[in-house]
Amino acid sequence: MTLADWAATMAAILTTVSFLPQAIHVLKTRDTGAISLLMYVLFTTGVGFWEVYGWLVGQPAIIIANLITFVLAGAILFLKVRDVMGRSAPSA
Amino acid sequence: MTLADWAATMAAILTTVSFLPQAIHVLKTRDTGAISLLMYVLFTTGVGFWEVYGWLVGQPAIIIANLITFVLAGAILFLKVRDVMGRSAPSA
Repeated sequence: MTLADWAATMAAILTTVSFLPQAIHVLKTRDTGAISLLMYVLFTTGVGFWEVYGWLVGQPAIIIANLITFVLAGAILFLKVRDVMGRSAPSA
Repeated sequence: MTLADWAATMAAILTTVSFLPQAIHVLKTRDTGAISLLMYVLFTTGVGFWEVYGWLVGQPAIIIANLITFVLAGAILFLKVRDVMGRSAPSA
C-alpha cells in the first residue's frame, strides 16, 4: 500500500463516517435549524453521482462508501425537508 | 470524456459546492445548534487527507476541489467551536 493509497483510505473513511454523528445529532435533537437544505440537496445528489461512478468503474470500495454516505446524508435531508414542510403547513 | 469521467466530475462539483450554502447559512444565522461538532472535525480532517492524496498523485483537480471544501468545512467547524466554547464560558 503506497502513501497515496493510505491517504485516500483515511480520507474516504473519515469523510464517510463523519455523517454518522450529524445524522445521530439531528435524530436525537430533532433540530435541523442550522442545517442547510440546499447543502443536503446538492451533497446527496453528488454522492449519488459518486455511486454511479463506482458502478461504472466497478470499484466496490467506492460503491460501499458512497452508499453509506448516501443513506446518512439522505436521512438528514429527509428530516430537514420534513421540518421545512412542517413549518409552512398550518399548525393543527 | 467517458460516462464515468462525467459522473465523477458532476459528483466532485456537487459535493464541493454543497458546503457553500451551509457555510453561508451558518454565517448569516450565527446558529450552529444543529451542526455536529464531531462531523466537522472528522470531515475536515478527511478532506485534509484528500488534499494530501491530491498532492501525492499530482492531480490539480483533486487539490483544488478539496482545498475549496477544506476552507468551507473549516469555516463551519471554526464557527461551531467558537459557539461551543462561548456556551461553556461564563457570560459577561
